[in-house]
Amino acid sequence: MNFAYQRNILMIVLMCVLHTAEAQNDVNNIQLPELHRDIQRKTIRVPSIEKYITLKCDFHMHTVFSDGIVWPTTRVLEAWEEGLDAIAITDHIESHPSKPFISGDDNSSYQLALPAAQDYNIILIKGAEITRAMPPGHLNALFITDANKLDIPDPIEAIREAHRQGAFVFWNHPGWTAQQPDTCRMFDIHRQLIEEGIIKGIEVFNEMEWYPVVLGWCIDKNLAVIGNSDVHDINDHYYPLHLYHRPMTLVFASERTEAGVKEALLSQRSVAWFSKYVTGKQDLLNALFQGAVNVSRANGKDSRGNSMITLTNNSDFIFECQSATPGTPSFTLQPNATFIIRYKEDIHPLSALSLSITNWYTHASQCLKVSLSL
Amino acid sequence: MNFAYQRNILMIVLMCVLHTAEAQNDVNNIQLPELHRDIQRKTIRVPSIEKYITLKCDFHMHTVFSDGIVWPTTRVLEAWEEGLDAIAITDHIESHPSKPFISGDDNSSYQLALPAAQDYNIILIKGAEITRAMPPGHLNALFITDANKLDIPDPIEAIREAHRQGAFVFWNHPGWTAQQPDTCRMFDIHRQLIEEGIIKGIEVFNEMEWYPVVLGWCIDKNLAVIGNSDVHDINDHYYPLHLYHRPMTLVFASERTEAGVKEALLSQRSVAWFSKYVTGKQDLLNALFQGAVNVSRANGKDSRGNSMITLTNNSDFIFECQSATPGTPSFTLQPNATFIIRYKEDIHPLSALSLSITNWYTHASQCLKVSLSL
Amino acid sequence: MNFAYQRNILMIVLMCVLHTAEAQNDVNNIQLPELHRDIQRKTIRVPSIEKYITLKCDFHMHTVFSDGIVWPTTRVLEAWEEGLDAIAITDHIESHPSKPFISGDDNSSYQLALPAAQDYNIILIKGAEITRAMPPGHLNALFITDANKLDIPDPIEAIREAHRQGAFVFWNHPGWTAQQPDTCRMFDIHRQLIEEGIIKGIEVFNEMEWYPVVLGWCIDKNLAVIGNSDVHDINDHYYPLHLYHRPMTLVFASERTEAGVKEALLSQRSVAWFSKYVTGKQDLLNALFQGAVNVSRANGKDSRGNSMITLTNNSDFIFECQSATPGTPSFTLQPNATFIIRYKEDIHPLSALSLSITNWYTHASQCLKVSLSL
Amino acid sequence: MNFAYQRNILMIVLMCVLHTAEAQNDVNNIQLPELHRDIQRKTIRVPSIEKYITLKCDFHMHTVFSDGIVWPTTRVLEAWEEGLDAIAITDHIESHPSKPFISGDDNSSYQLALPAAQDYNIILIKGAEITRAMPPGHLNALFITDANKLDIPDPIEAIREAHRQGAFVFWNHPGWTAQQPDTCRMFDIHRQLIEEGIIKGIEVFNEMEWYPVVLGWCIDKNLAVIGNSDVHDINDHYYPLHLYHRPMTLVFASERTEAGVKEALLSQRSVAWFSKYVTGKQDLLNALFQGAVNVSRANGKDSRGNSMITLTNNSDFIFECQSATPGTPSFTLQPNATFIIRYKEDIHPLSALSLSITNWYTHASQCLKVSLSL
Repeated sequence: MNFAYQRNILMIVLMCVLHTAEAQNDVNNIQLPELHRDIQRKTIRVPSIEKYITLKCDFHMHTVFSDGIVWPTTRVLEAWEEGLDAIAITDHIESHPSKPFISGDDNSSYQLALPAAQDYNIILIKGAEITRAMPPGHLNALFITDANKLDIPDPIEAIREAHRQGAFVFWNHPGWTAQQPDTCRMFDIHRQLIEEGIIKGIEVFNEMEWYPVVLGWCIDKNLAVIGNSDVHDINDHYYPLHLYHRPMTLVFASERTEAGVKEALLSQRSVAWFSKYVTGKQDLLNALFQGAVNVSRANGKDSRGNSMITLTNNSDFIFECQSATPGTPSFTLQPNATFIIRYKEDIHPLSALSLSITNWYTHASQCLKVSLSL
Repeated sequence: MNFAYQRNILMIVLMCVLHTAEAQNDVNNIQLPELHRDIQRKTIRVPSIEKYITLKCDFHMHTVFSDGIVWPTTRVLEAWEEGLDAIAITDHIESHPSKPFISGDDNSSYQLALPAAQDYNIILIKGAEITRAMPPGHLNALFITDANKLDIPDPIEAIREAHRQGAFVFWNHPGWTAQQPDTCRMFDIHRQLIEEGIIKGIEVFNEMEWYPVVLGWCIDKNLAVIGNSDVHDINDHYYPLHLYHRPMTLVFASERTEAGVKEALLSQRSVAWFSKYVTGKQDLLNALFQGAVNVSRANGKDSRGNSMITLTNNSDFIFECQSATPGTPSFTLQPNATFIIRYKEDIHPLSALSLSITNWYTHASQCLKVSLSL
Repeated sequence: MNFAYQRNILMIVLMCVLHTAEAQNDVNNIQLPELHRDIQRKTIRVPSIEKYITLKCDFHMHTVFSDGIVWPTTRVLEAWEEGLDAIAITDHIESHPSKPFISGDDNSSYQLALPAAQDYNIILIKGAEITRAMPPGHLNALFITDANKLDIPDPIEAIREAHRQGAFVFWNHPGWTAQQPDTCRMFDIHRQLIEEGIIKGIEVFNEMEWYPVVLGWCIDKNLAVIGNSDVHDINDHYYPLHLYHRPMTLVFASERTEAGVKEALLSQRSVAWFSKYVTGKQDLLNALFQGAVNVSRANGKDSRGNSMITLTNNSDFIFECQSATPGTPSFTLQPNATFIIRYKEDIHPLSALSLSITNWYTHASQCLKVSLSL
Repeated sequence: MNFAYQRNILMIVLMCVLHTAEAQNDVNNIQLPELHRDIQRKTIRVPSIEKYITLKCDFHMHTVFSDGIVWPTTRVLEAWEEGLDAIAITDHIESHPSKPFISGDDNSSYQLALPAAQDYNIILIKGAEITRAMPPGHLNALFITDANKLDIPDPIEAIREAHRQGAFVFWNHPGWTAQQPDTCRMFDIHRQLIEEGIIKGIEVFNEMEWYPVVLGWCIDKNLAVIGNSDVHDINDHYYPLHLYHRPMTLVFASERTEAGVKEALLSQRSVAWFSKYVTGKQDLLNALFQGAVNVSRANGKDSRGNSMITLTNNSDFIFECQSATPGTPSFTLQPNATFIIRYKEDIHPLSALSLSITNWYTHASQCLKVSLSL
């Protein structure tokens, strides 16, 4: 026995012997399973809230049946692998660039995806995107019964037809730079449709854009807060899924069913989650934080006389924490990780810890404040 | 809007613009925090059992104070980052190759590591390795009071001194090829020390060696099942921590204290975990499995008429499952993942699912059997 | 200044301050470029051979225009990102499960992919798979002019039509367990088509199956050695591209053009590469090894009196090396890595190093032997 | 054959069968080589310049023999694995916090590391850090003969003693915030030692700090440009080596020897490299860029009528490129990757491509300009 660098030399030799000992027992057909990815559903770890199940949903995506490049079944498999519960394929009613090579109609992508959804226990919501110039811009209709009937020249009539089918209609990417290069603006027609109870939610996040001002609109007008991928490409070619989950809407539902999703959306029990950001109503965000983070005071002190508070994040969320308590630091609490706050109890005695979560938003420019009792 | 390959071109241009927009505001001193790893404690996800807390422990490791190459404080920081609860630094009493450059004595590594253990809330158990020719080979003594007093020429006397200090003594790597190149064998002296109640556990796993026959000895003689790293090198240079946690002993304790660890070891409430393997008593392994895996029957059938059973693994364990139920497949259930079993209910109606977990061992060559009610 | 664990505490605080200093300057529309993958073409590192360019090719893949699930443009983008030079989309003439939703004909996938190939400088070879019961099983025809004309009931007539179009025809997966569950077998019709010069190559590798016996056939009958992905799925969903490149055929061409690929295939200048394996003619494999590996003798000896030979692998290949020279170890030489061979020069003086590369095959069960002068 | 989601189901079953087929042939001692990392030297890919070899060097690091936490041999193994050619261990002459437990003197860390350097063919340069209040602050002396003799109370006398031993002396981290919290400043004593030819280089980069103003000093006063890690911790615990190489000095030497390093430093043939940044003289940076990047004009045009220029980066460098040519985009050229510039030849005909490399610096606030002929 000796220093590690001698051990390394021995190990390399040992590894070689073991590696080359692999038997090959058949020259006719050798299977190489290492050439296949063993695809399983990955669990997204977010807490439940009170009596509700937290469903992970993406209500905006495309296939070759409009201007996406993937086949509808792929959208279901992606959702299963990534740990989602519910998706809506929302192909454009008005855009079919692959038309010369694609037959079928505006109901086809749902029809093709449904058997896969059944196989993988994904809630598949029938949807479509009504795609017009601004205003009113683009709107998604969920829970529709016949997408073909939305193909109506007048945009408002198309939206009303979706409403007649019982749709939950939400306004997509109000600040999309291609339509609104100057700023994010609400038009009269949006106000009217909101007042009529037809527009029931707005995307505060879409693809790579986030609109804080829209979060304020949702909170002030009691609309569902929505965040979606709007993915046209293969999802993990577009989003760096090794770093973050895809953008999504977290829906707090009484049951894991299509009806459960709809009831929750109609009750505005949703938040938008994209990369490190979570946005939505103060009470929902606070409940998510409290469900995700364990806090405890350590017994005794550290070797420099500091008291210690341990925060453990049991979720996939990222929390950037700024402390309002004197003498305590700011810090980032990573997923599945623990951080220790050190402070001088004699100088700054603490009975509660007040934090600003600077990457979680409860209104246009307000971040979440939480208080943790010790 | 168009096909994705056109979107890619646009995106690349957009990315470039955004990347080059980074401002550099000071030519005197620019901080580059991306050059530092933000080290946090990672949670190891394993379930609790009944009323016990599951503590993750490594009772065998070395520093420069014997023939390791790391400083004692490093062992504590490694343990904290990797999510361990308790460690014992067990430097050899008899081997000090760095002696010309190291002063201090056999108590020094504990003394140096203790302030770091206090800072990071790691239970640091005072230990040492009594390192002799076989028999009796190498033995670790935990919970000792003075390592220097173990420096006694007669190996049995050294072991008895540890016992007098109140030590939990276990036998290390009985099949280590350097000492036992032929086979793994129990000598008379081991039998005697076990009967006297001095040897209270044996390593079934050490470094990269696992001894199924020793698991049988532990079960048959009611000894604690132990698995350790015996690391001499920097831990993540030796073990591929991006693939597996380090080898460890899971201890089921009434409280997260040194006393809690000792009581649990004296009551044989421990299992050994290394890469995909877990080994120990049937009841402990069954409780871990049941705590880690959720099983549910899906409503309805899949698109080919199969019934579906969903298994979700909420732990960091890997389960290689072989089904005893006709018509159901074998499969591997990965950490934090879900697998769907599909079967024909009309051909093979199921009221319970019987699985062999072929990588979990309850005796020398017996694997864990579990039954899951549906 | 002090021990590292104190430094960590300071660093964590510093990181936090820096992280939370990110400015957000617009509540209307915030761009989050970190939510996009910046996709670039990755270079596959393999050496050139003599006067030839080494082209990385995959001659077998599917789209929604037969039973694949991706759109044709995706195949080109995948090839570009992964560093390939040439691909052939080879949809089945006889299988169109998505037909009710896909219009177009057997030439459509080529037609759709061509603009993307032009944009990304990928050599797109027009191809198709003639898909029949065994014999003759499945055959790919490359460089065809009209895929629709291959839709002929008699399989031999279909193959002859491809030949008339100037096709390079090769036999796919002779040991595919779905068609040949017992063993890998050459039928009379294959022998005849080879003798007629119609079948000019055979896949020794397909998807996850490799057929050493077929490598022997290729060498003995002077046929091109072919290895392909036969991918139906999204390529990086099927293959673990973070571990290995996709299976491919390396073609040694005089120029990077479609004509260059064809001339090289007609001259049997190709090898198959899949995971750690490379298979083909002895002279081609030897040239690849010599081009990939630098060998040098170190000046002086190591601290234990060993002489040292340094091997550096400048390619993406993996070499499992078994030394025929007494006193030298076996070892694995990883991509982009260096290994040091240590030996006693006084006991085993070396003027050359003889290695068996046990994962590189030159015939059914023969591995590559190389000799390196020092 | 069918859609991919059916294939997935089949694959999962197949994988399971193959996984569980692993035989376990011995219940006494099973080796688990997957529990060990197979450590090999990784090649750092940077081009040579003219007749010089590019040596990768780190001239500033610590061990337990001053205030670091690693054993000296570890520094050599780290350097070997990471692909470095030369290192200097530069323990503080004046700081020995581990002294109660460490014996030996200021020459011990070199003495302990030397056998490992011999084993791994690393150029080990004898060095030390003279560690005083500012001015003159901290200075490293390389190529010294006896570190103990530098233990002289007067800082200037200590520096002169190093000079008498033939040392290459450079000034460390002039802007280190602990010593220079306000700004980065040159004192009279530095000017004097530079004029006397005693200080021959300055660190423009140290740990996570980079001082553009110091780069200007080096260029203007003809001093060697130096960048070092100053690592006290285990190197890959401190630096995220999965993202970047450690900070280093690239030295352009006539031969890979200690003498070669010294001659090159005395001739100011060095640049500093840290994360995405490279800093140094214009001619050296231009030569590195030209050696790393291949540029070629593609034949023909893309599907939208653009001409295409292909840039391939054959090195581990990152180039953030801003084009001075009208109609061409800015972009980031990643390591081992290819980017395609698209432009309208008829609107902006190009005979050469002029780029600013905005993350490569040739003076305090000047970035590298390159011109590529087409």
